[in-house]
Amino acid sequence: MTQIAIVGAGVMGSATAWPLRDNGHDVRLVGTHLDRDIILSCKEQHFHPRLKRRLPEGMRPYFVEEIAQALEGVEIIVSGVNSLGVHWIAKTLGPHLRPGQIIISVTKGLEATETGELKIFPDVLRDELPADRRDQVTQAAIGGPCIAGELAGQRQSCVVFGSPNGAVLERLAATFRTSYYHVWKTTDLRSLEICAAFKNAYTLGVGLAAGWLEKSGGVDPAEAYMHNLAAAIFGQGCTEMARWLEIAGGTQSFAYGLPGAGDYYVTAQGGRTLRLGRLLGLGKSYAEARQILAGETLEAAEVILQVAKALPALTAQGVVTPQEFPLLRLLIEVIEQGFKGDFRLDEFFPGMNIMR
Amino acid sequence: MTQIAIVGAGVMGSATAWPLRDNGHDVRLVGTHLDRDIILSCKEQHFHPRLKRRLPEGMRPYFVEEIAQALEGVEIIVSGVNSLGVHWIAKTLGPHLRPGQIIISVTKGLEATETGELKIFPDVLRDELPADRRDQVTQAAIGGPCIAGELAGQRQSCVVFGSPNGAVLERLAATFRTSYYHVWKTTDLRSLEICAAFKNAYTLGVGLAAGWLEKSGGVDPAEAYMHNLAAAIFGQGCTEMARWLEIAGGTQSFAYGLPGAGDYYVTAQGGRTLRLGRLLGLGKSYAEARQILAGETLEAAEVILQVAKALPALTAQGVVTPQEFPLLRLLIEVIEQGFKGDFRLDEFFPGMNIMR
Repeated sequence: MTQIAIVGAGVMGSATAWPLRDNGHDVRLVGTHLDRDIILSCKEQHFHPRLKRRLPEGMRPYFVEEIAQALEGVEIIVSGVNSLGVHWIAKTLGPHLRPGQIIISVTKGLEATETGELKIFPDVLRDELPADRRDQVTQAAIGGPCIAGELAGQRQSCVVFGSPNGAVLERLAATFRTSYYHVWKTTDLRSLEICAAFKNAYTLGVGLAAGWLEKSGGVDPAEAYMHNLAAAIFGQGCTEMARWLEIAGGTQSFAYGLPGAGDYYVTAQGGRTLRLGRLLGLGKSYAEARQILAGETLEAAEVILQVAKALPALTAQGVVTPQEFPLLRLLIEVIEQGFKGDFRLDEFFPGMNIMR
Repeated sequence: MTQIAIVGAGVMGSATAWPLRDNGHDVRLVGTHLDRDIILSCKEQHFHPRLKRRLPEGMRPYFVEEIAQALEGVEIIVSGVNSLGVHWIAKTLGPHLRPGQIIISVTKGLEATETGELKIFPDVLRDELPADRRDQVTQAAIGGPCIAGELAGQRQSCVVFGSPNGAVLERLAATFRTSYYHVWKTTDLRSLEICAAFKNAYTLGVGLAAGWLEKSGGVDPAEAYMHNLAAAIFGQGCTEMARWLEIAGGTQSFAYGLPGAGDYYVTAQGGRTLRLGRLLGLGKSYAEARQILAGETLEAAEVILQVAKALPALTAQGVVTPQEFPLLRLLIEVIEQGFKGDFRLDEFFPGMNIMR
């Protein structure tokens, strides 16, 4: 039995409690200051209101003020915050960390700089930790296609754990793995995080097609949708993920595996990113869409705006050509200026016309 | 203006008439012996009953008995038959072919032998042509995500034309391309055809998950589907496509581009392959499912049964390991023996656990 604390009581972090409890571990769930209602419900009714499920037996919920108590003796910390909470969790955990602890994160996103750097969240988190503890804890992350509600429902789910530390990976996999939670392992944490961030961004493009269909009058009398358009966007999104992986010197095969195409596929089945894309496709500005979706964390837009910062420098440095990433460039424009009705499909797949 | 005959009046072949007519070409539509009702409707009402649309103005429909007249003077022949019609169309076209003609095919599938050969349809077709005409015509094919009803509805569609002959490719692209029909080109016809065939096969796996969800009681009270499972299958399917491309010495990047992930995505949005997969996932035998879907061409099952012939030899020859293609091996078993309820997910992604 391992002592584990999940910090951040959103759906994804909380859902990891199911395989962990099924494996008999001691699991504590710590809400952030935004999760007060969730933790209250967990404490009073042992019910997670966002997952709409009773918590697994034996789980212990904690308010953020009780975090010191919750973290007492834990070996593994699951970081369940969303992309806006990465700095917060680093600052919050910092004083409590002890050598040898493992932090495994479900957060998806990245931070970029105007010099062209794309920084994955485990590095963001690490840089916020007290200097004397930074190298005494090991970081890991979870990628791959996993809708939280399905994991909490003990549905078959296949995920990838990433960490630079192979021994830690083995330990994590053994801790989390159940008959329904299938865990693959990679030491290429960076590639895993790149996929996790970009599949969110590119799902916005699929949502854009859904909105555009509605704006164009919807399904026609002969029952034609715009799946062809969505599929072209999906293919371009996978292709751009492969190119980001190549630029990072990473594992390009992730683009057509669980972390890339697999996770992209599941994200495009529904959820807030698709809803945001739909609103933008309908012609709403990003500001309007944000108002309509108030209360939802729009991580896809965050990633797009982060990469927008880095792309000019990467292009100026010659790392990427001006023809590359037409979908991402379109998405940046859509967030910044709204969608004008042109998907610029002829710019897609610039490397496709290979004549051998 | 180019003289073009579409042979086979199924939805996909017929749909190419829209961009062709929009470009002002002379387009004739020749039904096979199975398309008699379609051609009758086209002749009498200028209406395609399966596409549920009026034909573009100026198109000329022909019964199969009128094929000689229909092919008179044509420069391009669109082969619109399904995978069961490849031998038929070769034998039917053979006597009428003239040097310099181009045959461009929408047929998806492949034929395999027990010695491990996987033969793409353009090669099957070629081998059936009279020996003296084989090398006097150029073959090409269309891949990428394109639902016929959407193309006929002039919805944005992105496709890939493949042909070993670059000049022919340029000509075809110029002939077909419109503001809504976006054409990429590849001389790697083999890789294009491999993707086209296998994405059908692997879509059966996604359908299997849908049937399994129903059989397991459907969406649960907390609204959990089985999208995670479907996404794992989708990722495994893309991964296996990439491996087939590697074995063929082909363009592996197709796996995450339009011909692979893009076409797989659109095929998994609905249609007969998904319906067949659902029935199998519900526990029906392939024989039962075929009866229920009587009248539909089950191309995915055809591909799976073809590859089933070649896989033992490929494994014995050491071209593939017994651990490779777990999804395809499962699908073969499902077609041959029915689905037993185990997706064997732990066999997926055998090359994923890379520790660097």
